[in-house]
Amino acid sequence: MQTKNFDMVIHGGKALTMSAQADIVDPSLIGIQDGRIAMIQKEDPCGLVPAAGKYIDASGCLVMPGLVNTHTHLPMVCFRGMADDLPLMDWLTKHIFPAEARFVNKKMVYDGALLAMAEMILSGTTTFCDGYFFENQIAEAVQTCGMRAVVSQGFADFATPDNPDLEKMMAAARRFVERWQSFAPMITPAFFCHSPYTCSPQTLVSVKDAAREAGILFLTHLLENRDEINIIEERYGKKPVRHLLDLGVLDDRTIAVHCNWLSEEDMAIFADLGVGISHNPVSSMKLAAGVAPIPKILERGITVGLGTDGAASNNQLDLFAEMNIAAKIHKVTAMKPTVMDAQTVVRMATIEGAHLLGLGNLTGSLEVGKQADIILLDMNQPHLTPLYNPYSQLVYAARGADVKTSIIGGKIIMLDRRLLTIDLASAMENVRHIASEIRGKRANTQST
Amino acid sequence: MQTKNFDMVIHGGKALTMSAQADIVDPSLIGIQDGRIAMIQKEDPCGLVPAAGKYIDASGCLVMPGLVNTHTHLPMVCFRGMADDLPLMDWLTKHIFPAEARFVNKKMVYDGALLAMAEMILSGTTTFCDGYFFENQIAEAVQTCGMRAVVSQGFADFATPDNPDLEKMMAAARRFVERWQSFAPMITPAFFCHSPYTCSPQTLVSVKDAAREAGILFLTHLLENRDEINIIEERYGKKPVRHLLDLGVLDDRTIAVHCNWLSEEDMAIFADLGVGISHNPVSSMKLAAGVAPIPKILERGITVGLGTDGAASNNQLDLFAEMNIAAKIHKVTAMKPTVMDAQTVVRMATIEGAHLLGLGNLTGSLEVGKQADIILLDMNQPHLTPLYNPYSQLVYAARGADVKTSIIGGKIIMLDRRLLTIDLASAMENVRHIASEIRGKRANTQST
Repeated sequence: MQTKNFDMVIHGGKALTMSAQADIVDPSLIGIQDGRIAMIQKEDPCGLVPAAGKYIDASGCLVMPGLVNTHTHLPMVCFRGMADDLPLMDWLTKHIFPAEARFVNKKMVYDGALLAMAEMILSGTTTFCDGYFFENQIAEAVQTCGMRAVVSQGFADFATPDNPDLEKMMAAARRFVERWQSFAPMITPAFFCHSPYTCSPQTLVSVKDAAREAGILFLTHLLENRDEINIIEERYGKKPVRHLLDLGVLDDRTIAVHCNWLSEEDMAIFADLGVGISHNPVSSMKLAAGVAPIPKILERGITVGLGTDGAASNNQLDLFAEMNIAAKIHKVTAMKPTVMDAQTVVRMATIEGAHLLGLGNLTGSLEVGKQADIILLDMNQPHLTPLYNPYSQLVYAARGADVKTSIIGGKIIMLDRRLLTIDLASAMENVRHIASEIRGKRANTQST
Repeated sequence: MQTKNFDMVIHGGKALTMSAQADIVDPSLIGIQDGRIAMIQKEDPCGLVPAAGKYIDASGCLVMPGLVNTHTHLPMVCFRGMADDLPLMDWLTKHIFPAEARFVNKKMVYDGALLAMAEMILSGTTTFCDGYFFENQIAEAVQTCGMRAVVSQGFADFATPDNPDLEKMMAAARRFVERWQSFAPMITPAFFCHSPYTCSPQTLVSVKDAAREAGILFLTHLLENRDEINIIEERYGKKPVRHLLDLGVLDDRTIAVHCNWLSEEDMAIFADLGVGISHNPVSSMKLAAGVAPIPKILERGITVGLGTDGAASNNQLDLFAEMNIAAKIHKVTAMKPTVMDAQTVVRMATIEGAHLLGLGNLTGSLEVGKQADIILLDMNQPHLTPLYNPYSQLVYAARGADVKTSIIGGKIIMLDRRLLTIDLASAMENVRHIASEIRGKRANTQST
């Protein structure tokens, strides 16, 4: 091995590369240069140690690509636990929508997002895709914390907190894209229509057209709840996927979120057009919205990533919890314990999630040339002992709190569980302050 | 408030008592004397602080009864992640039973149990009910770590690792009960028949008779898998619950574990006779064994506790993960988001679990006179911010790793995440050594 200079070297860990060959390199030597992985190879205990600006000793750690959360609404951490154990439509129309109309503003979005990012970093996520209002504020929080993000400006036909005048939304959205598209390498702007039942055909088509023009992703909630089928059929005389298909908004730059009630016919359309899916099992279980037929969807070759959804419906932003449940819910739903094996689930939370977001060339695996988005898990813990199979351990035994260190784009964002870019105490205090306002005003207006 | 002497005072935390009135005392002042809770009241910021041998500042913490794990097989941590994503019967007959026949011995049981106890303490469990072989070794590990335990000697009609001679099992079991029944206040012996399909009617009846005679609990796996119904019907011409009923082994000192396929008729029998249920949703999801009809079971007034099952099928011994999934799996199975609300689930993991194990007078709630089995959760963390509803937060957002301090019978077992009774490094090393033997021998004999 030739001696080489790196900005950083991570040595001695068991590296799960999540490459197409599913290589495990143990012990591993990973060299990082200019934010990218410049070398990954087996560490030779007798070999020369390459010169580097910084060394991270990963002995006793699992080293793997940072996790990719393909769907969330970060500021909703402010509503975490505010209204649980309720039906989806009650939860949405009686609690969440009114709270959003009243309490969502620029400060709430920034403060909530920053706390959510702290939570995500602390549980191993390095890339996420958010969809909400005031996405400029989300992007600014991303700049602060150093994560990689797809930041999707939300659209709906009701007056949204950031733009009560629907006419002006599109212009504002275009400015949003221009602001972030070339300026910030860690940020990818996108557009997000809330759903086919809250967005008119015209809104869906205009937003998708604008997304196509800007070359960005278009996302929408789809078939989260069974009721949606009836609503769309009554309104448009066809089922939701057919409705979107006829509007021309389905293509390989469209991500459908949830898809709990996707039919075989819908799957064929998705497979044919390359539509991808963000799977959020925990939120859908809690809201009793349904279980997406993911094993069948995977058989069709459709790209599926994992998402946590917002903290008002999950209530965690922890992809380890999401992997754990994703692996199990499909086994018991299909009564087939062999579906959604651990490796498939880890792929979904890493490389498949990255592909879904159009970032597969940048992140999601440990391979030379990719961005150095890397997490280290401390495996020297009782609940992770012994270790037979690293995929099983990650999915069935590990927790977000086992993530020790996080590197994003070659920059250390968390070291030994200490966040280096976020002032955690203030981030928590800011959200507690928002929550106390929400609590006070809700108490004043609610009859209960 | 009169000044009083206590061995220990815990002050300043938000106390979830889990009493019948579901009192929340905030901020709370808890006095412990002779291992018991001698006082619990609202802390008066201007009041006198009672004199105590030790003070624990619980500011920013949730204080609650330690969790009760009503079913596990602790030494199976040695098999954690050894064989996942497999059908239950393959998993059991091709992997677990052969591994048990080969590798289970006194040392494996003690070492595995001690590591499992470390994991349980670190995730908030203070009381558990184990069922396995060599239960004397489990009881000895309990003595070491200071947990509260029901320790159930296992019976099956195949040659078990601890007693290949079936004839001698009962005599050994009686000695086991005598040894622990009066001697050790933290240990409650019990008998555990593996299942109606691995125990003959004669075994079931003899073991239950012996349990009755000794005044101890009788446990059995029941209706974990749907196949069991056919097996028992073919063998005995009736369904499993009717089979056990006719054998006379069902009463209010019998705990049926799993009950995924319990019918309405079975529930009526259970309700009538006072049979209790240990619900292990995570293990049953992973093995695709089924989902127990817990909401209906609760409507009947049947006592239900939560259990993790063994680490070969879960693969965690973390009751926070179990609560989280228990709350959600029934919502999506029943398509009803209002079932298994957070408070019901926390009760199941505390006071109801204690009642199930016949320990409801000792543990499971924070009430004067009860044993001081108390855990403190550090709520000052991003994923637990903000806090609207403590039950929601515990079930939907908290994790085992949030437990900071654990007190069992008035003794501090873990302080600020540091285990005080277990040498964690050795416990992990011992199990790693066992696993490396298992790995080596399996590699030598398996064709793969």
